[in-house]
Amino acid sequence: MLGASGYAGRELCQLLSEHPVFDLAFATAHERRGERVTVGGRELRYVATDDAPLGDAELVFSALPHGASGVWVHRVVQEGAHAIDLSSDLRPGHSEVSVPYGLTELTRLALPGASLVANPGCYPTATLIALAPLLAEDLIMPGGMVTIDAASGVTGAGNSPKAELLFGEVTENYRAYGVGNDHRHLPEMRAMVTKYGRDLDLIFTPHLLPIARGILATITVPLRHLPDDLLGIWKRHYANEPFVEIVSEPPQLRDVVRRNVVRLSAHAVAHVRTPTILVLAAIDNLMKGAAGQAIQNANVVLGLAETSGLPV
Amino acid sequence: MLGASGYAGRELCQLLSEHPVFDLAFATAHERRGERVTVGGRELRYVATDDAPLGDAELVFSALPHGASGVWVHRVVQEGAHAIDLSSDLRPGHSEVSVPYGLTELTRLALPGASLVANPGCYPTATLIALAPLLAEDLIMPGGMVTIDAASGVTGAGNSPKAELLFGEVTENYRAYGVGNDHRHLPEMRAMVTKYGRDLDLIFTPHLLPIARGILATITVPLRHLPDDLLGIWKRHYANEPFVEIVSEPPQLRDVVRRNVVRLSAHAVAHVRTPTILVLAAIDNLMKGAAGQAIQNANVVLGLAETSGLPV
Amino acid sequence: MLGASGYAGRELCQLLSEHPVFDLAFATAHERRGERVTVGGRELRYVATDDAPLGDAELVFSALPHGASGVWVHRVVQEGAHAIDLSSDLRPGHSEVSVPYGLTELTRLALPGASLVANPGCYPTATLIALAPLLAEDLIMPGGMVTIDAASGVTGAGNSPKAELLFGEVTENYRAYGVGNDHRHLPEMRAMVTKYGRDLDLIFTPHLLPIARGILATITVPLRHLPDDLLGIWKRHYANEPFVEIVSEPPQLRDVVRRNVVRLSAHAVAHVRTPTILVLAAIDNLMKGAAGQAIQNANVVLGLAETSGLPV
Amino acid sequence: MLGASGYAGRELCQLLSEHPVFDLAFATAHERRGERVTVGGRELRYVATDDAPLGDAELVFSALPHGASGVWVHRVVQEGAHAIDLSSDLRPGHSEVSVPYGLTELTRLALPGASLVANPGCYPTATLIALAPLLAEDLIMPGGMVTIDAASGVTGAGNSPKAELLFGEVTENYRAYGVGNDHRHLPEMRAMVTKYGRDLDLIFTPHLLPIARGILATITVPLRHLPDDLLGIWKRHYANEPFVEIVSEPPQLRDVVRRNVVRLSAHAVAHVRTPTILVLAAIDNLMKGAAGQAIQNANVVLGLAETSGLPV
Repeated sequence: MLGASGYAGRELCQLLSEHPVFDLAFATAHERRGERVTVGGRELRYVATDDAPLGDAELVFSALPHGASGVWVHRVVQEGAHAIDLSSDLRPGHSEVSVPYGLTELTRLALPGASLVANPGCYPTATLIALAPLLAEDLIMPGGMVTIDAASGVTGAGNSPKAELLFGEVTENYRAYGVGNDHRHLPEMRAMVTKYGRDLDLIFTPHLLPIARGILATITVPLRHLPDDLLGIWKRHYANEPFVEIVSEPPQLRDVVRRNVVRLSAHAVAHVRTPTILVLAAIDNLMKGAAGQAIQNANVVLGLAETSGLPV
Repeated sequence: MLGASGYAGRELCQLLSEHPVFDLAFATAHERRGERVTVGGRELRYVATDDAPLGDAELVFSALPHGASGVWVHRVVQEGAHAIDLSSDLRPGHSEVSVPYGLTELTRLALPGASLVANPGCYPTATLIALAPLLAEDLIMPGGMVTIDAASGVTGAGNSPKAELLFGEVTENYRAYGVGNDHRHLPEMRAMVTKYGRDLDLIFTPHLLPIARGILATITVPLRHLPDDLLGIWKRHYANEPFVEIVSEPPQLRDVVRRNVVRLSAHAVAHVRTPTILVLAAIDNLMKGAAGQAIQNANVVLGLAETSGLPV
Repeated sequence: MLGASGYAGRELCQLLSEHPVFDLAFATAHERRGERVTVGGRELRYVATDDAPLGDAELVFSALPHGASGVWVHRVVQEGAHAIDLSSDLRPGHSEVSVPYGLTELTRLALPGASLVANPGCYPTATLIALAPLLAEDLIMPGGMVTIDAASGVTGAGNSPKAELLFGEVTENYRAYGVGNDHRHLPEMRAMVTKYGRDLDLIFTPHLLPIARGILATITVPLRHLPDDLLGIWKRHYANEPFVEIVSEPPQLRDVVRRNVVRLSAHAVAHVRTPTILVLAAIDNLMKGAAGQAIQNANVVLGLAETSGLPV
Repeated sequence: MLGASGYAGRELCQLLSEHPVFDLAFATAHERRGERVTVGGRELRYVATDDAPLGDAELVFSALPHGASGVWVHRVVQEGAHAIDLSSDLRPGHSEVSVPYGLTELTRLALPGASLVANPGCYPTATLIALAPLLAEDLIMPGGMVTIDAASGVTGAGNSPKAELLFGEVTENYRAYGVGNDHRHLPEMRAMVTKYGRDLDLIFTPHLLPIARGILATITVPLRHLPDDLLGIWKRHYANEPFVEIVSEPPQLRDVVRRNVVRLSAHAVAHVRTPTILVLAAIDNLMKGAAGQAIQNANVVLGLAETSGLPV
């Protein structure tokens, strides 16, 4: 794998070490090349990105930084291997090139045998799994405003040392970031809304939580009308999905941490004139929001059981 | 003071011990009567509520539980003292009786000499200080939907031992509560919106943060039109307010903890058709959200300097 | 299993759900009888302790409270099943009856086929795995004073609601408890020291950490003399142990959380006249300190592979 | 003040802003020169260290890094101002030059009018205030081993971005550091023991806590004999000290955070042959362990009331 020393890269190495089929061929970490680390009880040695034997692998994961990753996964494909790109470089709304988007539950059919897959962002994963059934059934008020307030643990921001991510700055603190602007994840969400042919405005406000891992999205959605069996919408759509959990109580982050699932609840809002619902979606940003979903996609690309090597 | 052993009660005792004019006459804590505690370097002895010498004080604060407090503050008034009620019993939307509402910056004129003041809830304090200038200037889209996503530290839930508030349950966790339903604080917010004569729908979703103190409200507001100088709205309205801070960057909880302030920013949302803004408001739930504002109100009731004894 | 609703009980149910051989026959939780919970993706229903079909199981774990558990595990044995008692009731130093002590690495030979096993306390597990090689090789200064300063996450104190364990009381705090007195775990440690025939004084001071899980013991030990290869002592003794890790850098709690291991380092102290070393031992109090070790013991009792169903 | 942008520097600026006599003349922060920050409600502008008008101040605090500070405070003195050095450069055991040591309660007499004061380290402050009465009364077993296990919040390690201090690395973690080696603070402690003429060995093991601020030292001390009134030793020695609190229950960090105090308890250890006690000492590392004590020393140097401008 390329870019193995960040939080997502390390999580992926860990998952690979427990996978019944996959075997880690190499792990790059440019700055830390030569260093030995223990992952899942096995020692591995980081190599420089340039020294990665790309052609030795059947499939290569890249968790290289946004901006750098896209070039490398194209090289991987040229070497004849499949590639799963965890960066934003090839995601819808970011790239001219159209590459299969690996939000597995929604785009599964495009994945088997794909040479290149764009692994979704963490916030879009939670948000789009929550919205997809409403988009598919055309239940959202046309032209309506969908408000996505989301909060993430710090591992979503990576492990490069930045003063604002020091323990002393984050503990007992909470703040919004990227407010009102176009966050990197918004084009990705919009692209999917467009793919469903819906006409909506999205407002997305991320926040930083004083926890290590987990994302909760609190999504307010105006509907054409309130259905009788609200939860039934998601239960029907995700009836056979091993990694989507529909619950009646609001999901908690601790219910999803270290698990490759999206956990969802939906609630009608009382005392408002426009029929409106709240959808709450929780994921582990490093699992279903990054490394877990990458494995899920790789499983589908290579024709393995989709749940292979993934904790449920 | 009545009900001195909870988080708000203790904070109030602490502030009273540092106040240049006030002197604590008695402190009740029914379950812990007889116990001695040290507050602000001075020892005090809890008495039973029934043994409180209500008439000995010029002004009595009550941080008794919701439901119990209302009766007691009426007794205080009968004894000839002023009362500040920190419970929800007498707040707008909760009580038939109309009692001056102590959201000081907005209702200051009703307070001097008042015999009884209803101290606002923590969430309404942050929300209403944020919305008031928009309500006053009639800038919000009529019939519009205002979405209030808010997150609070655990001291907002009190210090009675409940399993869901144990450290082991809250650390590395985050969750919404009271979703879609009528939270205790919603009637209070609606009552103020009505008082301004505006016609709006409010959606309020509180969340529990793994921190001790602080509330951040992330408020999405559709406007009639986007003003040129967005922040100017709040700067004008709160020009002379010592306890309101208007900032250009999103406020962080650590900027307000242990201070009696509301810290606010406002941001236009890009790429949506309805002119829409995000207003972010941060407070310390135990200070401006409870004990600090109670002192602020008491200062005004008794004709002292409003900032007397309050950390800015 | 008996007593399934506490932190250790829930961890054990989780481990059982992933075990390749064991199958959970019943789970008691007296106060919560009738309640349904999901553990490891499978729903289970708590029954009252009195309704537990003790004879249906081949082996019964008890995580009932100290004081209550001892009676129940004796009943289990009368019903013809094996029992692993996670309480302190039958541990050395606590009970007149001598029951095999399940500090697996040190007492393995006594376990196969045992009808009753006393699962060790969390602090003694970390401490005794650290001290055992020194005791066995008679390296500690006779009559010497061994100082054990240890710190534990809150799950070690259980999940009954107590005011001092609320998030608001534990966050950003740290304190010692049971200082200078005979902590429940001290007799258990002393009993093992005696078993090795050594003459030592032990000082044990536990502290409460603002984290969910993990114990670090910092142990100061005066030796007869400083050996050349200090770490070699533990490497030799635990050469074939899958659950003991000897490392050269001080172990961190994050290295052991959710793993059934003891992670150890040892360091000579510079500039003191008596040859003295520091031994640092880290465990997850709910895994190697409770549920994980209980599974490990059950595996040995029933003749399964010792590592069966345990995350390394 | 010199070096105003670190945690101790900021705390000191905050305290200066509230001090009834002192007025901040300048604040340097070399890397952030030109930046404006708000401290205690007042805006200040960082200047480069070289541009500091040293001679304009009557007294200069330096919180420059260890190694750089010593040179600068000597320049301050040449300019005719008093200097308080918060770095380790001039502390006992670190410097050839003997400079008054500002552990105020123990060295008060050397401070009035001093041109240069070495402000103590945070760990030595807690430890030496705890040990001083035992040293003064010659109660410790000659040649005895004093074990100091201490734990500190992350602000003790400064606010330079280091990967190991990121929130994601520190939360839910705990570890020892500098184990067995000569920590920077050990010579400072030894120098004071020597000054009292005692012959002891000290073992010091610091740990990193997942909290922002606070230090707890757990000190094991062998005595010549156990006195009848153990706490009385400290009560007598510190009878008139406004910043030392002797308590019967173990001190908690939350009792000292944001306060310029040392809080102490002492406990006889049961069931050991050598008379042995545990002394527990808690401080806020940024207050009594750094900025607060610096103000306390400055007050004494300049002949002000020692408590001037300090929160008790």
